[in-house]
Amino acid sequence: MASPGSGFWSFGSEDGSGDSENPGTARAWCQVAQKFTGGIGNKLCALLYGDAEKPAESSGSQPPRAAPRKAACTCDQKPCSCPKADVNYAFLHATDLLPACDGERPTLAFLQDVMNILLQYVVKSFDRSTKVIDFHYPNELLQEYNWELADQPQNLEEILMHCQTTLKYAIKTGHPRYFNQLSTGLDMVGLAADWLTSTANTNMFTYEIAPVFVLLEYVTLKKMREIIGWPGGSGDGIFSPGGAISNMYAMMIARFKMFPEVKEKGMAAVPRLIAFTSEHSHFSLKKGAAALGIGTDSVILIKCDERGKMIPSDLERRILEAKQKGFVPFLVSATAGTTVYGAFDPLLAVADICKKYKIWMHVDAAWGGGLLMSRKHKWKLSGVERANSVTWNPHKMMGVPLQCSALLVREEGLMQNCNQMHASYLFQQDKHYDLSYDTGDKALQCGRHVDVFKLWLMWRAKGTTGFEAHVDKCLELAEYLYNIIKNREGYEMVFDGKPQHTNVCFWYIPPSLRTLEDNEERMSRLSKVAPVIKARMMEYGTTMVSYQPLGDKVNFFRMVISNPAATHQDIDFLIEEIERLGQDL
Amino acid sequence: MASPGSGFWSFGSEDGSGDSENPGTARAWCQVAQKFTGGIGNKLCALLYGDAEKPAESSGSQPPRAAPRKAACTCDQKPCSCPKADVNYAFLHATDLLPACDGERPTLAFLQDVMNILLQYVVKSFDRSTKVIDFHYPNELLQEYNWELADQPQNLEEILMHCQTTLKYAIKTGHPRYFNQLSTGLDMVGLAADWLTSTANTNMFTYEIAPVFVLLEYVTLKKMREIIGWPGGSGDGIFSPGGAISNMYAMMIARFKMFPEVKEKGMAAVPRLIAFTSEHSHFSLKKGAAALGIGTDSVILIKCDERGKMIPSDLERRILEAKQKGFVPFLVSATAGTTVYGAFDPLLAVADICKKYKIWMHVDAAWGGGLLMSRKHKWKLSGVERANSVTWNPHKMMGVPLQCSALLVREEGLMQNCNQMHASYLFQQDKHYDLSYDTGDKALQCGRHVDVFKLWLMWRAKGTTGFEAHVDKCLELAEYLYNIIKNREGYEMVFDGKPQHTNVCFWYIPPSLRTLEDNEERMSRLSKVAPVIKARMMEYGTTMVSYQPLGDKVNFFRMVISNPAATHQDIDFLIEEIERLGQDL
Repeated sequence: MASPGSGFWSFGSEDGSGDSENPGTARAWCQVAQKFTGGIGNKLCALLYGDAEKPAESSGSQPPRAAPRKAACTCDQKPCSCPKADVNYAFLHATDLLPACDGERPTLAFLQDVMNILLQYVVKSFDRSTKVIDFHYPNELLQEYNWELADQPQNLEEILMHCQTTLKYAIKTGHPRYFNQLSTGLDMVGLAADWLTSTANTNMFTYEIAPVFVLLEYVTLKKMREIIGWPGGSGDGIFSPGGAISNMYAMMIARFKMFPEVKEKGMAAVPRLIAFTSEHSHFSLKKGAAALGIGTDSVILIKCDERGKMIPSDLERRILEAKQKGFVPFLVSATAGTTVYGAFDPLLAVADICKKYKIWMHVDAAWGGGLLMSRKHKWKLSGVERANSVTWNPHKMMGVPLQCSALLVREEGLMQNCNQMHASYLFQQDKHYDLSYDTGDKALQCGRHVDVFKLWLMWRAKGTTGFEAHVDKCLELAEYLYNIIKNREGYEMVFDGKPQHTNVCFWYIPPSLRTLEDNEERMSRLSKVAPVIKARMMEYGTTMVSYQPLGDKVNFFRMVISNPAATHQDIDFLIEEIERLGQDL
Repeated sequence: MASPGSGFWSFGSEDGSGDSENPGTARAWCQVAQKFTGGIGNKLCALLYGDAEKPAESSGSQPPRAAPRKAACTCDQKPCSCPKADVNYAFLHATDLLPACDGERPTLAFLQDVMNILLQYVVKSFDRSTKVIDFHYPNELLQEYNWELADQPQNLEEILMHCQTTLKYAIKTGHPRYFNQLSTGLDMVGLAADWLTSTANTNMFTYEIAPVFVLLEYVTLKKMREIIGWPGGSGDGIFSPGGAISNMYAMMIARFKMFPEVKEKGMAAVPRLIAFTSEHSHFSLKKGAAALGIGTDSVILIKCDERGKMIPSDLERRILEAKQKGFVPFLVSATAGTTVYGAFDPLLAVADICKKYKIWMHVDAAWGGGLLMSRKHKWKLSGVERANSVTWNPHKMMGVPLQCSALLVREEGLMQNCNQMHASYLFQQDKHYDLSYDTGDKALQCGRHVDVFKLWLMWRAKGTTGFEAHVDKCLELAEYLYNIIKNREGYEMVFDGKPQHTNVCFWYIPPSLRTLEDNEERMSRLSKVAPVIKARMMEYGTTMVSYQPLGDKVNFFRMVISNPAATHQDIDFLIEEIERLGQDL
């Protein structure tokens, strides 16, 4: 009988010969090993048999045309991503995988090994001792590897290597010290759901081909509308490919509501339309206006106060001005959580003005929508229930994997009327089920990626209270950062007062600038500080945080916290790192 | 020493007690088991120790707060998706997973178990003895399960069950007998790449946060442009969320090229623009025109011949007509592979007309673009090299997982000028690397999903020749189907001649209709045949194929083959199944 350390466990041995010389023993063990789930049994058996003999218990497929096994890894990393002993990928190609008739075994091994690479990456992502990024300049990456596409196939060993290489140079967006974007973090349930979505590989246009996903979209959008505060969660909506497109939808629908003839006749048939949004709003409003034939000149930017909130009196003034010119104000897009300052426009005041002038009120809550999940913070969006449409990106503050952006519309049926084209090859009217679930024709897209499942599954796993806890924690961390730096030497806040969202905007003033007068030279030198510190952060790979100029303010850091992995210690680290990297500037 | 079948392998035993009463033996085995890669070692150890004792070799993290193990599965399915013995998910929640400080072990177990569910689904997808769909009506699905979202979290056992339930009712889009859409099949390398994309969880806007993916997009788009035939692969492009958006991009860019002032001034500043496309073209051209403020009335549908190809003389006639009215023809969208007939418009003739009248030539090759990979079939797109822009969806004929749609543009820089808004928080001009790789500002979206990696990795794995073989095989299968049914009793072709793409359009005529005169009553009865057969297909779950009316032709089947799993036998099966399900009608 084989015992630990002997030839039986030979996958770790140096010769890698397996137990193929003793098939009787191997068969007995293999029978037991087959009780393992997840393909492990098959792998064990393959090891025992050294690929030479197929165990009686495995499925009817033939063994793959694999070459003799190599010795397996003996590395310390678990999960590791070394080549496996039981399949020689150097002799396997994509054509050996399913649906190849003997493809089951190599497929399971290959996908499992990809998974091992991914699991290793996931574990590393959360490890503070690893780099956030292993930064290389574009020309370095282009020279270091051959990324070109060729006529001939590569073997699966090379494919697995590409997976490793790609992840080696990827940003670890789930790393506890990655603060660079509004979307950070890596949720395990969300990730699992996205893997499932990829595996289901379907489109959202009809119930026929996405029955569960269509129902889940219905359930989830309704829940989001309830949270917004629309009675009974009534209304409409869609998951779109990002906040910019969601905002564009809102603009389209607002225009259609006022001038339905625009669908057939175009902008030529309607008067000059004017949209209003704050000077701190997201650039997608202008992108949308350019695309929709409205023109960027017709997007009026309303002044903000020093905290970045739209000033309602300026809004009203500009509406009147437009009307006096004979233009038609058709949309006000208020922002709930601006990109840089994290400011919340005064939605109630905006709603009053929209009501007075009969203008569609849109709320771009792409970033701030997550605060609706928090009993402590949702007051910042008071008045959102009076909006006609709301953009809300769960892939930002709620940590859902990219992309997951919803547009919610208060009036039902408008989206459908605005966008439908009745394609008879998709939306057959004589199907055998309730056609109200074929919602694809309300989209601007035809095929539409399934973005809902990761949000739905995370919501089941966390509950509304779980999202609330996450939001509250991130806002608490932002306040922690604010409290540390507001009076700390070498820091200057871009605006006064506690952050409303998790955005904390500040300059780091290196010692050499601290005694300078506040003149142009100082501004010029200060504007170079954040870019240099950021470049150093990336080269060291220790942390990442964004910076930008805004209006007359030169480059400053915009810290945002949406990462569930971040802790007080990571905030402390960030401050120390900025000082370490910037003190000589 | 433990031997096969004894308590050592107790995960399969009825009491599930493990070997925790014998920790010394367990430790010895566990030390060896740690040589397993992919977390298997840890799982084995956990089994051996019954969660009671942590092996010395495992990582420093604490065991999760799991309850005593349950007996593991003894089911016959490998991989199976039964709950695992070593982790009791009923006592675990999302908060126990990473980044929880003791989260590594439960995370690896949870993700591995999700993976087992997915692997089981993958294997089943290719198994002809399983149903393509386990069809339930919307109200049944809504009643059978509670899909609602609640305040409180669910445990991970429930989350794993949701994954199983979701897949139970999903369409198996990779099933060899799923022919319902232009996008079918499930490519194993593409799937692996999409899992990796989910795990990397980043956005495409800058090199800063997606270094490798940005480079791969550059390499892949260039290769696609080379294949189109633009000198040196020069030009521009983007991966967009689907063919409809790609077509809309083309329309936007064509408009901008002719009237750049439209970006600021809107459609009010430009004359009435007219776009031309065939009556068989995709409905997204009209959707795009409605969105862009051009209006659907300004999309002129050009007549097609009996095979569904645009008639160039009618195109020229309508262009002249528009010009006589003082309108400005700005875009011709020719289709390479129409949705229903699979027809290829005569691109060379269209190119001549576009050149003559100085009109932007777009080719919607969303469906037909894949044929460019085939030396045998690419002649069908002759003239595509003269286009100004091309839509090409690798997620259709090339089998890349959803979504993967490219818009290619011949002139470089136009996209950027058309769409850029210079958001300073994203596209900082003082970064430390070559900013030409920050391509996000040419997109209509802000955040943009990484759609390139699955195509790139599949291309490396298959080579251009692998895509060619796939395309050739699918077209051969379509011809096989055509040859069988063209003279078979009970079938009538919708148009004569060999299919140009894989679309085969036909009526099945049940025996009761075969002797009827070709009058209105027969048409009316015939129109009901395909819907009933399709409904029966779905209820039996045996196969799926699409049907629709088109123009004056009543409901007919549109068979399309893009599924790499399909064989001659599956085509035979489809014919038999249609006859079985339709003979009594």
